Amino acid sequence: MGGDFGVAVVVRAAAKYLEFNRDTSLILVGDQQEIAVEFNKINVKPCERLKIHHTSQQVEMNESPSSALRTKKDSSMRVAVNLVKEGIAHACVSAGNTGALVATARYVLKTLSGIDRPAIISTIPSIHGHTYMLDLGANVGCTSEHLLQFAVMGSVLASAIDEIENPKVGLLNIGEEEIKGNEQVKQANEMLRQSGLNYIGYVEGDDVYCGDVNVVVCDGFAGNVSLKASEGVARTISHYIKQEFDRNLLTRLSGLLALPVLKSFSQRIDPRCYNGASLLGLRGVVIKSHGSADAYSFQHAIDIARVEAVKQVPQQIDTRIVEYLEHSSAL
Amino acid sequence: MGGDFGVAVVVRAAAKYLEFNRDTSLILVGDQQEIAVEFNKINVKPCERLKIHHTSQQVEMNESPSSALRTKKDSSMRVAVNLVKEGIAHACVSAGNTGALVATARYVLKTLSGIDRPAIISTIPSIHGHTYMLDLGANVGCTSEHLLQFAVMGSVLASAIDEIENPKVGLLNIGEEEIKGNEQVKQANEMLRQSGLNYIGYVEGDDVYCGDVNVVVCDGFAGNVSLKASEGVARTISHYIKQEFDRNLLTRLSGLLALPVLKSFSQRIDPRCYNGASLLGLRGVVIKSHGSADAYSFQHAIDIARVEAVKQVPQQIDTRIVEYLEHSSAL
Repeated sequence: MGGDFGVAVVVRAAAKYLEFNRDTSLILVGDQQEIAVEFNKINVKPCERLKIHHTSQQVEMNESPSSALRTKKDSSMRVAVNLVKEGIAHACVSAGNTGALVATARYVLKTLSGIDRPAIISTIPSIHGHTYMLDLGANVGCTSEHLLQFAVMGSVLASAIDEIENPKVGLLNIGEEEIKGNEQVKQANEMLRQSGLNYIGYVEGDDVYCGDVNVVVCDGFAGNVSLKASEGVARTISHYIKQEFDRNLLTRLSGLLALPVLKSFSQRIDPRCYNGASLLGLRGVVIKSHGSADAYSFQHAIDIARVEAVKQVPQQIDTRIVEYLEHSSAL
Repeated sequence: MGGDFGVAVVVRAAAKYLEFNRDTSLILVGDQQEIAVEFNKINVKPCERLKIHHTSQQVEMNESPSSALRTKKDSSMRVAVNLVKEGIAHACVSAGNTGALVATARYVLKTLSGIDRPAIISTIPSIHGHTYMLDLGANVGCTSEHLLQFAVMGSVLASAIDEIENPKVGLLNIGEEEIKGNEQVKQANEMLRQSGLNYIGYVEGDDVYCGDVNVVVCDGFAGNVSLKASEGVARTISHYIKQEFDRNLLTRLSGLLALPVLKSFSQRIDPRCYNGASLLGLRGVVIKSHGSADAYSFQHAIDIARVEAVKQVPQQIDTRIVEYLEHSSAL
């Protein structure tokens, strides 16, 4: 059981989540003793809705995906994914090593027919709500076919979770003019126009935040860079605001008066409320929590897992990808 | 003479800039009559330090680079770059079509020996100052050699402008672990380790903003996406702050009291203070101003042009790239 803050966070998140979600059961996969110690600390006992599944190994945060696959067959990560494969769990949530999780999930669960690679998707806060963006780092290089598959998967997820009938899909590029972009992006643009999806064309990095598009499709390198850059900007701006209010007695006083406003603002951009990225394209629900998640944000990741399992997102993608493949071969 | 707001912005910026920079002369390249009309509006007359150079054509904002090159030989953009080539001007500033400017500058001025392609570089505000980032969109696909050349150019610029002796150079990747990233990035990482530059290894999208690195190197797709995403986040956050302070009478009052703080904060993240991206790697100084620049931010772009010309940045890159090529062939 991973993440930067280990078992304590997951145990606290699980106990809290079950308090408010009576229809959910959780299996904590990891070192039995470690988990039991944390249970004791918060006065919780294992029960029908909160079980422990003991494993003897752990995938390290800097371990290579191939090493994890080869040598960590009794790791919490591998066993948790196995439980999904075996139908014992409806979904798996992990705060562990992203590369190893993608490789393990892909190896154990397999991708859906018509999907070459799983992609990482998450919501990004925008002016009018949020935007789904994928891939956020599972695939550094992508063909136009991959980008098309991502578009179908993202569209299904936005439709299932947010109940949008025909989500607007945009393709990330570095200019709205047709002349820009690399070959994969240009080809994907043509394929998306024919796809029957509600494709609105190229979007740029800032369009992710304007709220006029529901799903933004890109390769994992661009997606990850964009996500991390955005986190960096948000942190820098928060730092600036604190510094400005801390300048002298007068500014500190005005900061005190503005405190409720600043707090409410902080909550709106709180990355913990956006924790939980989905690995789409697999025959099962797998959610990646941020490694530095606290108990509050880990609960958010559990909730995404529950919703995707209830909405049967993998089955929906399976149905839709077959439709799109038939549609495109009929053209 | 381009930009979204046309001649008026450039004329006002030029007149204002000359007021405060007595060592500088400017040549305004464009439609003589249009420029004269704007001169009249602000009561300025052409003089030794502020000349007009008439041209009959203009490159459109959505025109393809090849069309601009072929059919717009008397455009303000082409003629302005020609003036640099002929030694009549020390630098060129344009708010026009980026693709056309890169192609024109490359065709007319040529790249320095040892540089395959020009790159777009700009400063990005960070917690402790700013970070130089390149390429921001001139090259959608880059080899490891290109990335190495960008690193040398960025290092020279940071060193020349900010007078940092040995700028810290980072390579943008999607994880700090050696296992991640695409082939070009991995190869560039090896080459940079041998380069003699002050190379600190991989950095991620958020490291651009932490201020622990002076120059971040990446391909133009990732760089442009990262830049645009950052602009989007900053705008979204400003929007949120305004909304929160506007919620009710009490929050509006606290906003009023916090006004000086918020104003000082806005100035710190004002993109106008960062306007002006340099096209590096050419045999001359060419600066791209944002298309939506106002007169204040256009002055900033002019100032970058002046500083790069004074510091002889192209000549410095030429010297350093020869050193690095010799160094790497000696290894």
